[in-house]
Amino acid sequence: MSKYDVKLKTYKNPNQDVIDDLVQRPAIKKEELSNIVQGVFDSVRKNGDKAILALTERFDKVKLDQLEVSKAEYIDGSSLISDELKDAINLAYANIKLFHQSQQLESKKIETTQGVTCWQEARPIERIGLYIPGGTAPLFSTVLMLGIPAQVAGCQEVVLCTPPNKDGKVHPAILYAAQLCGIKQVVKAGGSQAIAGMVLGTGTIPPVYKIFGPGNQFVTAAKMKGLEYGVAIDLPAGPSEVLVFADASANPAFVASDLLSQAEHGIDSQVVLVTTDESMIEKVNVALNLQLENLSRANTAAIALDHAYVCVFDTVEASYDFINRYAPEHLILGSDDANDHIGLIQNAGSVFIGHYTPESAGDYASGTNHTLPTAAYARAYSGVSLDSFVKKITFQNITKSGIQNIGPAIMTMATNEELTAHANAIQQRLDTL
Amino acid sequence: MSKYDVKLKTYKNPNQDVIDDLVQRPAIKKEELSNIVQGVFDSVRKNGDKAILALTERFDKVKLDQLEVSKAEYIDGSSLISDELKDAINLAYANIKLFHQSQQLESKKIETTQGVTCWQEARPIERIGLYIPGGTAPLFSTVLMLGIPAQVAGCQEVVLCTPPNKDGKVHPAILYAAQLCGIKQVVKAGGSQAIAGMVLGTGTIPPVYKIFGPGNQFVTAAKMKGLEYGVAIDLPAGPSEVLVFADASANPAFVASDLLSQAEHGIDSQVVLVTTDESMIEKVNVALNLQLENLSRANTAAIALDHAYVCVFDTVEASYDFINRYAPEHLILGSDDANDHIGLIQNAGSVFIGHYTPESAGDYASGTNHTLPTAAYARAYSGVSLDSFVKKITFQNITKSGIQNIGPAIMTMATNEELTAHANAIQQRLDTL
Repeated sequence: MSKYDVKLKTYKNPNQDVIDDLVQRPAIKKEELSNIVQGVFDSVRKNGDKAILALTERFDKVKLDQLEVSKAEYIDGSSLISDELKDAINLAYANIKLFHQSQQLESKKIETTQGVTCWQEARPIERIGLYIPGGTAPLFSTVLMLGIPAQVAGCQEVVLCTPPNKDGKVHPAILYAAQLCGIKQVVKAGGSQAIAGMVLGTGTIPPVYKIFGPGNQFVTAAKMKGLEYGVAIDLPAGPSEVLVFADASANPAFVASDLLSQAEHGIDSQVVLVTTDESMIEKVNVALNLQLENLSRANTAAIALDHAYVCVFDTVEASYDFINRYAPEHLILGSDDANDHIGLIQNAGSVFIGHYTPESAGDYASGTNHTLPTAAYARAYSGVSLDSFVKKITFQNITKSGIQNIGPAIMTMATNEELTAHANAIQQRLDTL
Repeated sequence: MSKYDVKLKTYKNPNQDVIDDLVQRPAIKKEELSNIVQGVFDSVRKNGDKAILALTERFDKVKLDQLEVSKAEYIDGSSLISDELKDAINLAYANIKLFHQSQQLESKKIETTQGVTCWQEARPIERIGLYIPGGTAPLFSTVLMLGIPAQVAGCQEVVLCTPPNKDGKVHPAILYAAQLCGIKQVVKAGGSQAIAGMVLGTGTIPPVYKIFGPGNQFVTAAKMKGLEYGVAIDLPAGPSEVLVFADASANPAFVASDLLSQAEHGIDSQVVLVTTDESMIEKVNVALNLQLENLSRANTAAIALDHAYVCVFDTVEASYDFINRYAPEHLILGSDDANDHIGLIQNAGSVFIGHYTPESAGDYASGTNHTLPTAAYARAYSGVSLDSFVKKITFQNITKSGIQNIGPAIMTMATNEELTAHANAIQQRLDTL
């Protein structure tokens, strides 16, 4: 017997009204947060580094002499972590780099009309800011997920902000990962004040064009505020999510382990099971309670599972109708037929195919990015990829004969849109030919 | 002698402080707009179609019986425009389609570690909304620029909103372009109420996942409001811009015609000339005044040119330092050496290379998209492309030997991040092998 008594709420062939409710995500009190964060922005604008230092003392309970990680502390990072962890990080680094390198734009020149050539070229975003949350554990994996594509893209100025621990230090594993990614500046700043710093610039923190990284609701609100100030962000963010699809071929212990690895993130984690095999539910419930026994964050996971649920559908098609409506951040396919389901997937952040592909793999080391759209944003947004760190600029080159070929059509269109200066720009050129 | 007396303000080798001022764009009164637009959203949420009809009567001065363009009116579109215009639109359609088709993701499967395979697949955004502004002229070109990539991507539900004219009709050229793009639903709604309709849904207008299209400051504020409601948008928008680089090889008449074709868009158009040849300025000024004589929107253009300016730099490098700081929406290279300058460009929306490549070509028919980042957003944003209409979902497939290869590293990393359930998901699987 387990000391836990988790039991997933079950919905059998839910109707559309129920589905409409089930796919909802928790709402956030935006208004209130926006006002608090505006105060932080105003303070950082007025007092720069001093404001960040004061807010760090207040929220992180540590008094710093300087915001930036010193060269000595930075270099020490690699000597303060075990070789085992270093090797693991190195393996993840290599896989993530390889996959993101494969995403490089292959510029294709297209002659759309004789003498009219169009193409795209990628350019790195010159100045970016990465935010790595603090908390009990050092999220060095997120440093890799943001730092590697920035490095592959060739972003020129990269600043990493992360809150200091109680000793005023940054965890050496974060520093080691940052070094691997070639990041030159690490700043001890967290929360909305770090985001405000990267939006507005301070003595220590340079203003950036785009901010990446996860965080709590204050960080998210600050990133949304950044948008108003003209700074781009990676993704709007919400609590992390997993949806596991399991048919009769699924291994209940694997399914339970995947649900738990999402549930341990936080009490607001979104955990959903979809199955075509009703008998799977009881087996998963048993496995959940068994495995909870051995988890360090079992209490968090158990609370998160309290609002988790399972939907049973009669058919695979109905299952994917629901999955696409839900648009999960992580979608795990626990099925012998998983490969046949790929074509059914319309909305998801990252997909894990087959029994031996847990979400943990993508979280750390398979090579895919773990910064993904939550809160049903997967209906319209991609996760972070190399694309997120570049602009694709379009180019066109038109020869004299090219402008003769398309010029008259342009003049007709411009004239019909009553933009005669647009037509004139063509006429001026045609007149010389 | 021209009746106009336009003279571009001139800055010679401006220093950094002056440059900081020059690259600023006009500020927008966001707060006030946001409140007005919130009122429209509240009204549309409460009264749906009725609210849209009432606001259309108020702002567009026309009382409609129904919001949706009827089948008969839609089909009539193609018979009510000239063959000349139809042919021009058809040519543009073919070029734009060809270039956007070339942007399709070529899915590459990458084996990052033996047994660990990662790849991306694109999926269309299922429900999108296109906004086409009204005004004196029908912007059918924008229908093509948004409708074609939506069609190439395979977006399943596309609604197009555009305000009706005084007779309660939509211009046939807009309807013809929409037909070409396979758009099934055209709705007579404009302004922030149209955007609110696409965000919230009404009886006639379906709610969408992403909204595209230009518009005035109310439309822009409504799109930003849509972001708060969880709907994605194409780009934050501001007044349109051109920056022309001209060296001694440039043709002053061509340069003037390109500046004018931007200036005629509106009195707030941003028009900038950068040159390495001081003698070019007077020649361009003369050409501007001459060409203004023959333009239907000369008064608008003349007002816009009033806040236009020219920067003279001693070197090509200094010119591109400025250009990259400015990050223009449209960048025209009037130089025999234009091809050699491509590598110097870091920030721009779309680039027009050489003397016979006017912006008008990209606005209508070269094949590139004309929905581009303004207001220096080109530092962090790409223009609209096929990417804007799809999500790139990542997939991973791990074999039994694959999880044996990367599992231990994942467990090490997860344990160091104090996420033992993540490690457990690996262990559960390794235990069976």
